Amino acid sequence: MQLSSQPSPPPTPGTRRPGGRTARTRAAVRDAVLTGLVEHGYPGLTVEYVAERSGVHKTTLYRRWGGVEGLVADALDLAGEDSWTPPDTGSLQGDLRALAREVVEAFADPAAAAAPTAFIAAAFQSERAADALRGFYTERFARCGALIARAVERGEAPAGTDAAAVARAVSAPLYFRLFVTREPVDAAAAEQAADAALAAVRAGAYAAAEPERA
Amino acid sequence: MQLSSQPSPPPTPGTRRPGGRTARTRAAVRDAVLTGLVEHGYPGLTVEYVAERSGVHKTTLYRRWGGVEGLVADALDLAGEDSWTPPDTGSLQGDLRALAREVVEAFADPAAAAAPTAFIAAAFQSERAADALRGFYTERFARCGALIARAVERGEAPAGTDAAAVARAVSAPLYFRLFVTREPVDAAAAEQAADAALAAVRAGAYAAAEPERA
Repeated sequence: MQLSSQPSPPPTPGTRRPGGRTARTRAAVRDAVLTGLVEHGYPGLTVEYVAERSGVHKTTLYRRWGGVEGLVADALDLAGEDSWTPPDTGSLQGDLRALAREVVEAFADPAAAAAPTAFIAAAFQSERAADALRGFYTERFARCGALIARAVERGEAPAGTDAAAVARAVSAPLYFRLFVTREPVDAAAAEQAADAALAAVRAGAYAAAEPERA
Repeated sequence: MQLSSQPSPPPTPGTRRPGGRTARTRAAVRDAVLTGLVEHGYPGLTVEYVAERSGVHKTTLYRRWGGVEGLVADALDLAGEDSWTPPDTGSLQGDLRALAREVVEAFADPAAAAAPTAFIAAAFQSERAADALRGFYTERFARCGALIARAVERGEAPAGTDAAAVARAVSAPLYFRLFVTREPVDAAAAEQAADAALAAVRAGAYAAAEPERA
């Protein structure tokens, strides 16, 4: 559920990234954007900084990304192009608890938390960053469809349960603590978020209008 | 549940605010801080701006508030010193739905939303703003104790239900959409957040370790 936060490791000599030079450039630029966001925040991020840090010429950055907003939005798009799949533990409770733990663990390590936190902060100042963030989570929530489909098949969730609503329900109390109320999160908070979402699923709170409510 | 977002109206001639001149100064400074945060964001807020806008001398601002961080934290503390009480509709479902609607309505009007949004954004950059925000919500959640006490008395919630956890559960999916996933919120989202929290309350998800789980 978390934003992929690790800058990709630099390609070692002799290895080729899939996509070749263009993909390498994009990844180098993304890494520079992440580092810049983490170090200076969105208001302090400049095309000059990204050029210097990535070794990609300023003219190229302007031509291809338009400017800082485009650079941040593309870094977010790239973060979404990973192979994340939702947990598959064999039970809905196990899956939701694992999902909640992923959020807590993603933000427990300050180094790992820095990039996703910087993206969330940037969205306060950039409409394009906000759009990219929305796209990132829409895609993440869609992937959770598989988790809910399995639960419906096992009889653990009503047919028509909205996977995005469930994924949101599990994550929301943790992000709310982290970025609104500024309260700590821990394993107990993760478990409570997961178990509350499970109770709401069972009660049909995320099922479409008509079908069987518990 | 929302941050008190309206700058207090300027005192009309002949009226006296409770607390006299000191309270008037504090409110004028608070209004200037809110306007500055909304217009320039935390990184652009300066003591000079607050001095000019409030008519309070810079030296006084530094002496009394220390600087920008102290000014923002005090504006937040002042926002918490209101007379907000949780809804009392006669049923837990009605109360939770009203609470959720308050959040949606507070952020539906861009003018009203500006100040609380600016505070939430400032907490990304200022540890003192984050502390003040945490204090604000801790106090808000504590006030929700009355709402849950009534529900327990009516037999609508298990004894030992944690009022703060319930208040958080109702608000979190809405704030998550507003400030993390950047999705729209509406009356339907409010109702779903409230009804999901209600289902979790009934299932005992927010009750202390031992007592009766449904």
